[in-house]
Amino acid sequence: MNLRYSERMGQIKSSFIRDGLKFTQLPGMISFAGGMPAAELFPVEAYRKAADLVLQESGQSALQYDTTEGYPPLRRMIAEELMDQVGVQGITEENIAITNGSQQGIDFSGRLFLDPGDVVLCENPTYIGALNAFMAYQPRFVQIPMDSDGMRMDALEKALGTTPRAKLIYTIPDFQNPTGLTLSLERRKQMVEIAKQYNVPIIEDNPYQRLRFTGRMLPAIKSFDTTGIVVYLGSFSKIFSPGIRIGWVCADETILNKYITVKQGADLHSSTIAQRELVKLMETFSINEHIQHLNQVYRIREELMLERIASDFPDGFQVTRPEGGFFLWATFPEKINTLSIYQTAIQEKVLFVPGATFYAHEDEKNHMRLSFSNTNEEKIVEGVKRLGKLLHTVLPT
Amino acid sequence: MNLRYSERMGQIKSSFIRDGLKFTQLPGMISFAGGMPAAELFPVEAYRKAADLVLQESGQSALQYDTTEGYPPLRRMIAEELMDQVGVQGITEENIAITNGSQQGIDFSGRLFLDPGDVVLCENPTYIGALNAFMAYQPRFVQIPMDSDGMRMDALEKALGTTPRAKLIYTIPDFQNPTGLTLSLERRKQMVEIAKQYNVPIIEDNPYQRLRFTGRMLPAIKSFDTTGIVVYLGSFSKIFSPGIRIGWVCADETILNKYITVKQGADLHSSTIAQRELVKLMETFSINEHIQHLNQVYRIREELMLERIASDFPDGFQVTRPEGGFFLWATFPEKINTLSIYQTAIQEKVLFVPGATFYAHEDEKNHMRLSFSNTNEEKIVEGVKRLGKLLHTVLPT
Repeated sequence: MNLRYSERMGQIKSSFIRDGLKFTQLPGMISFAGGMPAAELFPVEAYRKAADLVLQESGQSALQYDTTEGYPPLRRMIAEELMDQVGVQGITEENIAITNGSQQGIDFSGRLFLDPGDVVLCENPTYIGALNAFMAYQPRFVQIPMDSDGMRMDALEKALGTTPRAKLIYTIPDFQNPTGLTLSLERRKQMVEIAKQYNVPIIEDNPYQRLRFTGRMLPAIKSFDTTGIVVYLGSFSKIFSPGIRIGWVCADETILNKYITVKQGADLHSSTIAQRELVKLMETFSINEHIQHLNQVYRIREELMLERIASDFPDGFQVTRPEGGFFLWATFPEKINTLSIYQTAIQEKVLFVPGATFYAHEDEKNHMRLSFSNTNEEKIVEGVKRLGKLLHTVLPT
Repeated sequence: MNLRYSERMGQIKSSFIRDGLKFTQLPGMISFAGGMPAAELFPVEAYRKAADLVLQESGQSALQYDTTEGYPPLRRMIAEELMDQVGVQGITEENIAITNGSQQGIDFSGRLFLDPGDVVLCENPTYIGALNAFMAYQPRFVQIPMDSDGMRMDALEKALGTTPRAKLIYTIPDFQNPTGLTLSLERRKQMVEIAKQYNVPIIEDNPYQRLRFTGRMLPAIKSFDTTGIVVYLGSFSKIFSPGIRIGWVCADETILNKYITVKQGADLHSSTIAQRELVKLMETFSINEHIQHLNQVYRIREELMLERIASDFPDGFQVTRPEGGFFLWATFPEKINTLSIYQTAIQEKVLFVPGATFYAHEDEKNHMRLSFSNTNEEKIVEGVKRLGKLLHTVLPT
């Protein structure tokens, strides 16, 4: 059966990372590939109690249809956390709509703003899942270079000045996926001013913001927004559980109402029961203490991985030293193609993500994303050893 | 802030029904509007046990990321139910992908098949949520007339012959939303032949199929499909709970893989924990006996509503007598506009859905959708009385 698909289906690709999940199941495999939280740190018992209380106290409502924007007590709690923790000001539950993780917020942003041929400005490199989500709306990508302070504002301004069809600035400001880099305070303020000047909204995708191990928390880009030019996407996936699929959009009411209309058509609403369970969890369990605990564990893992990389990898590479999040980004000499190393790595039972994945035009091949979040200390030591051995065979010493 | 939205946002509308949910909260309101299952029939205790067992036995996996297509044991159970209960043949879990209700399956069908200006052929009238979902892909709608045997095949064939850009046939064959009408066996076979002839896929949206109170179960349209031209959308929303947001797409593997790629970009995957809870529920609780119980209760409600309508409404209308599902469809003389009656009805504390909602071009205004599923017997009697009184003031006697 040869069906006639839409034009966009010629562009939509399957994610290298999600397709690679099958290799993580192989016996003895050590994976630094997936951006997954540590399952052994999930507060399973606290959630079990919360789930039981919700079904006991309000089972009928918890299993029924709900409003598209989501459960008001959850939206209120999210608004309060954003004001208390990341500096967003003057918001209420009316500025929050619930989505299936921040991934759905990315998809909806594309739906809201992009016509075919419109341009998305984003970091170079950036999250592959965002490239794939936007692709459904047939845009072009202009990827803006980064340095150790994140996306370069001079390059952003230049791109906006020469790209009349620029429609969205997409950024992951904290512990970026895949580089682990963080946008500086000064640049956050600049980005809002530049976006206003060109009237191009910023999609601030910030699922890792609370996972800071060292240094001072930087306010969200949204906290400098006085006109509604910033849409903030958040998620419970990294700070609590990705399996429940609950995230949110925080935006000015006029814009938020458009996201809500889009969600109506897309899937009516997010899980009623998961939203009520989250509220119950946050009433009976300190999510802020839980996040502190996560940060202690992830900090140890990152430091160990950096230490082992320094001792086991051959010379001639650079690696980022993120202050939080899930990822390290290693850069090798230009002649090294990490995609060809990947095949050997599978045989050696160690996984990473080849850097080319994170470029819309796959123009840089000499990088590697290494996730330290979902691997215990013993496996970090052994996995880096395997990778180091392999790199010694391809890198000149 | 005046942002530049995509062109599609000029067409996407908010649903009349979902926006009207707020009226259902008014004190003393009796609502025949929303297409909601009866919350008092949810098997809350069985689900509570299932949820507790899942978190006890496999809490870490249940809260972690999952594959996009969904949990294999759930997909296997769905494939088996489709073969045992509605006549679909020769499928396995490889033909099933999990979605957030069948609503997400509709959205993905639009994404997969529709370019702006393409044509969706559907029943006249049809489900407003499908019109709204497809609207994001900027199609035209050609609505095909129905009679008591459902969509008319002569009219469908004629439309296909004169519509080169026809890309999708969208149909709700059983106890259709909003009319309650069912596509006859003969026409199911014909529809598959016609679709094959014009190479236009059928999206069979069938969430009510198992809710048959009288007469013989008709096989799914998908059961007559030998070439992969039919995509079947199903859901746990009407037979168990809509709050968990779990439905599925059943299609040939090549087509299903495209749905899976689309879902990756849209929201990665559906709730891991909800999928595992459903499997546990079906292992520990008979969902087929539960459906039988639902059908007994809904049958009584439908019969009562029809009986009260016959005695309380003034003469000069017609009403369908569905063999299952949630809805009755009442037709009044052409000069009656049910949208203007709606405002008075709110004041009289009774809600229905004005028929114009279900037409892409709002061309028929003299219908009313009445849902009997979510109202107990006492309220059915009182609600129909209120409506009857109101109708006596507008209908000539």
